Amino acid sequence: MIIIMGPNADRDDINHVIDRVKSSGLQAHVIEGEAQTIVGVVGTPIPPSLQENLETLPGVNEVVRVSTKFKLSGRDFHPHNTRITINPQGAPAGTPPVVIGGDAITVIAGPCSVESEEQIMESARGVRAAGAVALRGGAYKPRTSPYEFRGLGEKGLEFLAKARAETGLAIITEVMTPADVELVGQYTDIFQIGARNSQNYLLLEEVGKAGKPVMLKRGLSMLVEEWLMAAEYVMAQGNPDVMFCERGIRTYETATRNTLDVSAVPVVKKLSHLPILIDPSHAAGKRAFVDSLSLAGIAAGADGLMIEVHPDPDHALSDGAQTISVDEFNILMPKIAAVAAAVGRTVPATSAVAD
Amino acid sequence: MIIIMGPNADRDDINHVIDRVKSSGLQAHVIEGEAQTIVGVVGTPIPPSLQENLETLPGVNEVVRVSTKFKLSGRDFHPHNTRITINPQGAPAGTPPVVIGGDAITVIAGPCSVESEEQIMESARGVRAAGAVALRGGAYKPRTSPYEFRGLGEKGLEFLAKARAETGLAIITEVMTPADVELVGQYTDIFQIGARNSQNYLLLEEVGKAGKPVMLKRGLSMLVEEWLMAAEYVMAQGNPDVMFCERGIRTYETATRNTLDVSAVPVVKKLSHLPILIDPSHAAGKRAFVDSLSLAGIAAGADGLMIEVHPDPDHALSDGAQTISVDEFNILMPKIAAVAAAVGRTVPATSAVAD
Amino acid sequence: MIIIMGPNADRDDINHVIDRVKSSGLQAHVIEGEAQTIVGVVGTPIPPSLQENLETLPGVNEVVRVSTKFKLSGRDFHPHNTRITINPQGAPAGTPPVVIGGDAITVIAGPCSVESEEQIMESARGVRAAGAVALRGGAYKPRTSPYEFRGLGEKGLEFLAKARAETGLAIITEVMTPADVELVGQYTDIFQIGARNSQNYLLLEEVGKAGKPVMLKRGLSMLVEEWLMAAEYVMAQGNPDVMFCERGIRTYETATRNTLDVSAVPVVKKLSHLPILIDPSHAAGKRAFVDSLSLAGIAAGADGLMIEVHPDPDHALSDGAQTISVDEFNILMPKIAAVAAAVGRTVPATSAVAD
Amino acid sequence: MIIIMGPNADRDDINHVIDRVKSSGLQAHVIEGEAQTIVGVVGTPIPPSLQENLETLPGVNEVVRVSTKFKLSGRDFHPHNTRITINPQGAPAGTPPVVIGGDAITVIAGPCSVESEEQIMESARGVRAAGAVALRGGAYKPRTSPYEFRGLGEKGLEFLAKARAETGLAIITEVMTPADVELVGQYTDIFQIGARNSQNYLLLEEVGKAGKPVMLKRGLSMLVEEWLMAAEYVMAQGNPDVMFCERGIRTYETATRNTLDVSAVPVVKKLSHLPILIDPSHAAGKRAFVDSLSLAGIAAGADGLMIEVHPDPDHALSDGAQTISVDEFNILMPKIAAVAAAVGRTVPATSAVAD
Repeated sequence: MIIIMGPNADRDDINHVIDRVKSSGLQAHVIEGEAQTIVGVVGTPIPPSLQENLETLPGVNEVVRVSTKFKLSGRDFHPHNTRITINPQGAPAGTPPVVIGGDAITVIAGPCSVESEEQIMESARGVRAAGAVALRGGAYKPRTSPYEFRGLGEKGLEFLAKARAETGLAIITEVMTPADVELVGQYTDIFQIGARNSQNYLLLEEVGKAGKPVMLKRGLSMLVEEWLMAAEYVMAQGNPDVMFCERGIRTYETATRNTLDVSAVPVVKKLSHLPILIDPSHAAGKRAFVDSLSLAGIAAGADGLMIEVHPDPDHALSDGAQTISVDEFNILMPKIAAVAAAVGRTVPATSAVAD
Repeated sequence: MIIIMGPNADRDDINHVIDRVKSSGLQAHVIEGEAQTIVGVVGTPIPPSLQENLETLPGVNEVVRVSTKFKLSGRDFHPHNTRITINPQGAPAGTPPVVIGGDAITVIAGPCSVESEEQIMESARGVRAAGAVALRGGAYKPRTSPYEFRGLGEKGLEFLAKARAETGLAIITEVMTPADVELVGQYTDIFQIGARNSQNYLLLEEVGKAGKPVMLKRGLSMLVEEWLMAAEYVMAQGNPDVMFCERGIRTYETATRNTLDVSAVPVVKKLSHLPILIDPSHAAGKRAFVDSLSLAGIAAGADGLMIEVHPDPDHALSDGAQTISVDEFNILMPKIAAVAAAVGRTVPATSAVAD
Repeated sequence: MIIIMGPNADRDDINHVIDRVKSSGLQAHVIEGEAQTIVGVVGTPIPPSLQENLETLPGVNEVVRVSTKFKLSGRDFHPHNTRITINPQGAPAGTPPVVIGGDAITVIAGPCSVESEEQIMESARGVRAAGAVALRGGAYKPRTSPYEFRGLGEKGLEFLAKARAETGLAIITEVMTPADVELVGQYTDIFQIGARNSQNYLLLEEVGKAGKPVMLKRGLSMLVEEWLMAAEYVMAQGNPDVMFCERGIRTYETATRNTLDVSAVPVVKKLSHLPILIDPSHAAGKRAFVDSLSLAGIAAGADGLMIEVHPDPDHALSDGAQTISVDEFNILMPKIAAVAAAVGRTVPATSAVAD
Repeated sequence: MIIIMGPNADRDDINHVIDRVKSSGLQAHVIEGEAQTIVGVVGTPIPPSLQENLETLPGVNEVVRVSTKFKLSGRDFHPHNTRITINPQGAPAGTPPVVIGGDAITVIAGPCSVESEEQIMESARGVRAAGAVALRGGAYKPRTSPYEFRGLGEKGLEFLAKARAETGLAIITEVMTPADVELVGQYTDIFQIGARNSQNYLLLEEVGKAGKPVMLKRGLSMLVEEWLMAAEYVMAQGNPDVMFCERGIRTYETATRNTLDVSAVPVVKKLSHLPILIDPSHAAGKRAFVDSLSLAGIAAGADGLMIEVHPDPDHALSDGAQTISVDEFNILMPKIAAVAAAVGRTVPATSAVAD
């Protein structure tokens, strides 16, 4: 920690700062510049509230934290990329594991919501044939308005499991509240934490304890730093299998539903060893832009994509405007594979089991 | 609902739209302009997914929703301001009720976190003497990092209740998860829903069922529309006593912790009949700006303030940098009263019980 | 300047940084913490590009600037508030000067655009009678679309001068390009630099040379720091009479045209000695919110207001939706005076000359 | 234009709206829904201020514009992509033209500022050998602070022309003010309008008259709609050769200097027929992220890149932190070519002349 004194700070102000540092059991090193004085703090542990307390002392201009905050999610202490391996529970024998964070790009696809058994089976078959390795589908849906469709609940989870049993696709589905973690965990292969729950810390801890991989969608206006801190909450419970999913942030621009922060890919890669995926559908909000954003994400270095695909998007119960059809997904997948190859990645062939 | 066709839309495109509208049991009225055609939708109910589904039809430029979405929180159907009356539970006999949304400005004050019995008692006495009518204090604290102080839990609630029993101050404290609603409800007079939980819909419904007033802090990048929708979640459970609290939104500007959206006061007043308060402390993030923002909020028409006050802010366990001392609060209160008077409001005298 | 090394930086990295600092003629002080090393830079002048160059050296985590950047606009070296005194050019004898930045609140009012002699005369008489001391009105209008009304040009300036000659109101009008500074300067008492030109540095220098007061509107997404830097551009040309005008920043919220950053008032007051005004009209974008924002600005400590007022706003050629009528302005002025009084400010009586 | 009445609007309110529409020489069509009434406006031309004027009438909830605003830049009336062909002025005989907006990706590279003849010659040779077809370099630099390096002026333009004469690279350089357009136009092949001047309308018109291609960088918080409107300003002067350059927008995220809005590529492609390029350097602000953003831009469908490259970025006078070296550019170019090929584009071989 460094305390930057203002140009008008006097000797008393500086001594006051030094006393405050020492009273926390730390050492203070003073550098006197021509215009301003700086006090460097040496020692550990630094009490969490010290920064705020120092900032308000007279003569202090600014307090800068130095030490790395990401003990578990940060790359400083874990230089190698984390690979998450998932064996879809109850999949047909011989189903290969899904690996996230390796050389291969992981493509997750499926509808926004599980609407019926028929719809999810048709979705699963379609996206699997096109090359997806995991199936998304919401059984519990957070909706801005209480008057909209909110998902089928456990029935939806059952339909997802049926789709997995037939196709071998891993399942990812959202859990919205700590009380649901056990039930959802009986079905899902990956817990999805939605953007609106990205700082629901008790939920993060609960999925941390559940011992299955967790995908953390970025909050609507979440800093990358806060995102890594959310991962710390999960990992501090002993769960190392965390992945990020960039799904667009909220900005002033209204031409898209959100603004895909594609830079988050290299930023996260630099700060963290955890995998990061892109959700082009929520970022775009419009079907016509899903292709471009998918390819941009892969080119930027993302480890995978999560794309909304529906057998009949024009009649989808939620997110229809940003959902592509199975046919469109079939056209998109080879493009993804081409860009993946261009950046030295692969898209796994998935024909082994089902065909 | 209105469908705006693009300038290149042809007759087939328009018919396609009309068919889609009629297949939902609604009527379509076509207005043909010189450059573009518009289709107006008449009838109810409009299926929630219709807008998204229409947006993707060929030739459609834009779909605009018309009907009022805020059935319970909106002013259209409830023209008169809601007043929320709270009788602090277990307060000394003769304690006057706290009324939020009336002529009087409601001032809530207290520390960020309940740190100890002594700290909260001293806070309560201090803010009460200065004119506050309710006491804030977190027993369960959402923290960005899992390695920081997270509150005393139920012990903190007990200390709050003791402070109320002595001072007559109403209590407001945050509840973070549905499972805690019952316990927190045994103590608190007002449930606070924090910014990070502003779209935690299951929590909103749970406090909706609990039958006590609820304060909805605005999410970090929440639209005013989404805020009213969050209120719909609470109110749809039969709880009419909802109030808003603007605490700053996240913008590009870093000179303050958040950007106080003071315009939200008249905007909410126009759209909704529910009271709105200002939290100058979280908006500013710095003690030096709390006075200005408090006064600005009252001048803009807010129904009250929630201010972080601590007996010794320089040693606070959380939010110290933005917390003012009891002495500073004593200096601020008369300024609040003066501005309140200037805009035709009052600040209630609170000396009846304690003195 | 402080260089914060990463936890994995080795001795070579640190020596590399030290060499780079010394090669710029500066001294380097090293503080070795348990986890990380910090290098403090002492000496002057620090080359402007040094920070960027150091940031890319191996092992460097972050470089923090320390020295005060605001040599002329900053409060560090000019602790007392600047007062700007304006004697409206060609006003009737006995017209009192307009003082901005003193105890009195300065209210500037008038239409968005000068539309005709009649319109500006009627506006001037109306706002003067209500208590304004200066008249706004655009002769050169920046418009988002090239197909909209762009002002009357010099004819508009002449009408403004006529209004001043009759009413004694000082004039403020926008100048959009360096080539117009001389002409506009022949008429105006205050140059207005619009939000879109807030970083048009050649224009800032040109008005800096022109020797008349300058109002700097904040750019749509301008940091307060950049705003003070824009003032540096003007002041570095020898012109000390600069004032700021907060007119709302661009955020994700769409309920208002812009988001009034009322916190900018105390932030600017802390960093700078220059006056700051509020433009509630452009911030709100809607007439109904102008009152609230005006009062909020004054309560926050602003030195004045610039309000769009038109004799017939429903037929205004620009900005009609956010413009109030003269009648509404007459109702607003006493409210402004009341809030001003509540925060220890006054609104000058203007009846001396015209009545 | 459509006027959406509020649910409480009465017959008088509706008649008032109809009268206002008719008094502008237009027709009003009324659709009465069960809850609300809509008034459609038919006819042309619609006066620019009508929308704002209608919005303030009693009972009106919202006014929605329908007609296409982008007469020249919009795709509605120009369905085919614009290709801009540039023959670098004074380049060696046989230099092939630079085509922007065709199948080939256009790579522009060079330093932030022209610092010396040697530096720009070395840059030009380096980027040409690696495959760039145009050279960037600022002779006039907009800087946030008046105390920083602001470019060599005309001397810088001369150095650029020398570099072109030797290498055949087209030149792009920024013009900051209308008075400089003639001089800069004597040297440059493409006028660059910087982000800070993106709504400097007089400058846009001046380059519109100058008859050379214009690159419009996106303003820091410019809507895509406003960007197209800026293009309208240029094109309305008779200049059809306009291209866009996305360089990151300002958001709350601080991990990068700006947030690359990669979605702007497909959005602009949908709305407009003009080419769009990506500037990964200003978006990232950090050298380490330039590769990822370059590739993301091409994958998203951009027509080209403008990248900051310097022979010795660690000693660059400006933007060093975001500038890559010639060696790094040599490594990046084949990656760009690979991603371009993956999306069906090419990178032109440039060896014809110089080798």
